[in-house]
Amino acid sequence: MEQQFSRRRTRTVQLGTLAIGGDNPITVQSMTTTKTSDVAATVAQIAALQQAGCEIVRLAIPDMAAAMAVSSIKEATIVPLVADIHFDYRLALEVISRGIDALRLNPGNIRDSEQVRAVVRAAQARRIPIRIGVNAGSLDRAMLEKHGGHATAEALVESALQHVRILEQLDFHDIKISLKANDVPLTIKSYRLMAEQVDYPLHLGVTEAGTPRVGIIKSAVGIGALLAEGIGDTVRVSLTADPVEEVRVARDILQALGLRRFTPILVSCPTCGRCNIDLIALAGKVEERLQSISRPMTVAVMGCVVNGPGEAREADIGIAGGKGEGILFRKGEIIAKVAEERLADALFEEMDRLDKGDLIK
Amino acid sequence: MEQQFSRRRTRTVQLGTLAIGGDNPITVQSMTTTKTSDVAATVAQIAALQQAGCEIVRLAIPDMAAAMAVSSIKEATIVPLVADIHFDYRLALEVISRGIDALRLNPGNIRDSEQVRAVVRAAQARRIPIRIGVNAGSLDRAMLEKHGGHATAEALVESALQHVRILEQLDFHDIKISLKANDVPLTIKSYRLMAEQVDYPLHLGVTEAGTPRVGIIKSAVGIGALLAEGIGDTVRVSLTADPVEEVRVARDILQALGLRRFTPILVSCPTCGRCNIDLIALAGKVEERLQSISRPMTVAVMGCVVNGPGEAREADIGIAGGKGEGILFRKGEIIAKVAEERLADALFEEMDRLDKGDLIK
Repeated sequence: MEQQFSRRRTRTVQLGTLAIGGDNPITVQSMTTTKTSDVAATVAQIAALQQAGCEIVRLAIPDMAAAMAVSSIKEATIVPLVADIHFDYRLALEVISRGIDALRLNPGNIRDSEQVRAVVRAAQARRIPIRIGVNAGSLDRAMLEKHGGHATAEALVESALQHVRILEQLDFHDIKISLKANDVPLTIKSYRLMAEQVDYPLHLGVTEAGTPRVGIIKSAVGIGALLAEGIGDTVRVSLTADPVEEVRVARDILQALGLRRFTPILVSCPTCGRCNIDLIALAGKVEERLQSISRPMTVAVMGCVVNGPGEAREADIGIAGGKGEGILFRKGEIIAKVAEERLADALFEEMDRLDKGDLIK
Repeated sequence: MEQQFSRRRTRTVQLGTLAIGGDNPITVQSMTTTKTSDVAATVAQIAALQQAGCEIVRLAIPDMAAAMAVSSIKEATIVPLVADIHFDYRLALEVISRGIDALRLNPGNIRDSEQVRAVVRAAQARRIPIRIGVNAGSLDRAMLEKHGGHATAEALVESALQHVRILEQLDFHDIKISLKANDVPLTIKSYRLMAEQVDYPLHLGVTEAGTPRVGIIKSAVGIGALLAEGIGDTVRVSLTADPVEEVRVARDILQALGLRRFTPILVSCPTCGRCNIDLIALAGKVEERLQSISRPMTVAVMGCVVNGPGEAREADIGIAGGKGEGILFRKGEIIAKVAEERLADALFEEMDRLDKGDLIK
């Protein structure tokens, strides 16, 4: 897709199979609201989030039961998982040993430097990135006092950089950073300031954005403004709502800015002398049917079997007309010959199959 | 309010009693969906929009019946009204003579230069501003061809500037400009480009944003991104919905960015030795009551009559405690003495009165 906004240059970090930062697509993430130790409920919510288009899922790890549940949860999903950990380094070591894909952890909150070192070495060994997540509502007293008693953009950035420096001193650079505030201008200013200082990928979010009615607008304004300036590599929308709704909103923000495309695309050739079918009517039918498709897919409707499959090689699926008979193809490969009157139906069946395709392991 | 984002410098244009651009508040506008010639329906919708916080209302003027209705509509409202006119200069002259506050009209679409001059002279005589409104969907063929067949940001800006030059050549400078597109990146790029070229106030909007589900996000992202860069002087959210919802969304965008404040504010003093009432409990009660107030207002709850009214001079309304008796004040002026046990109720009554206050003439 055409790059719409000049994007800030960042390092790339690897989150399981997913690369964040650099020229990689800006990803959508969310967080489960289940008790992580309840494996069945957590896996079900991860599946629902993934079905909605969530690409990274964060889990709260408040205790050892939650940390130990990570093994079973990992077995049940292919979505990269991030463990949200505060203070307790043993929880971090536990989730790392159980195959977590990333941590959200502020190393400065683990006071003992040997404990920090143990976590960082374990993360390094498994190539697991760490997100530093600073929140305006939980800046420490000393930092607030230094900045006139207020959670300013400068205070948020300075606090995050303190955590970053701890990791850098241990030669750890697989870092993402978030700087969340409930206040949208503070959020925007903080990320702008951070973007000038480091080249780590940034995780965008407006925290405690509230109920959907106002929270969607706050998130769209805050996250959208930063993305339009080329800032941001992964996005979390926070709402007082089902996290599936967070995913929908995050995707709509990215799609509004032309940064990702999640709805299906129809490709069709201009009709020509070789065309023996009513291409325009057929394309119209397909376009209408695409309204009910929720997965991103490219569907081609081509006039003839001569050039059709080749020209539509990029399409996930397509049809090409012929004399009385057409073909159905996937990624340029012919998968079936179909009678002309069955062509549209055959395509619709294949589109539905692709749309419902189970992404869950 | 603290200025959150450095704002683009613009000229100021006057729209009835309302100034647009410069350091003036960024205003919220919408458009009626009634037949303008149906005066009763139009006036009722304007009242509903105003009640929701709409500060400028645009009316479609497709024919002479609509133009002639402007007199009666003006008599029934104090909200500044903008006439949306295409092609027909006689409609423009008619609404100007009937007291319209502004025009939205692209002078290049009126082919006859004498007709353009007549409209501009009439607008000049009544000090009525003109908004140039260019839309990506209706660029003329020549402009599209010049820009490679696409409605690019450059094409939108060039088209708008052609209209602007026509007005400038007639020494007319009370101009606002809008550059609307359905595509959010195109919208953002077009306004950014225009902001570099002229100092006229800009009217922001994403056109045909769609149903609220997606349209709210597209509008919040597009309008929000521009406002966060200091671009934009008046805002119209377009939704396939009741225009009252457009106003709500526009206000929430402005409020999210700290550019306007529409919800009530509570001011209360730190309690001190002079204080004879339970200030904290009283402030808590008032804060709770403010949840049900929809108008922006500043309410003060002060500990004593000595400094209270003076310190809370900026408050629209307030109370100050005393010994057995307190006072109720408005903008620093004492309006009643009230027994202590009646103090909260007296304030609530006054708040409700202020909240329901009829702004309609």
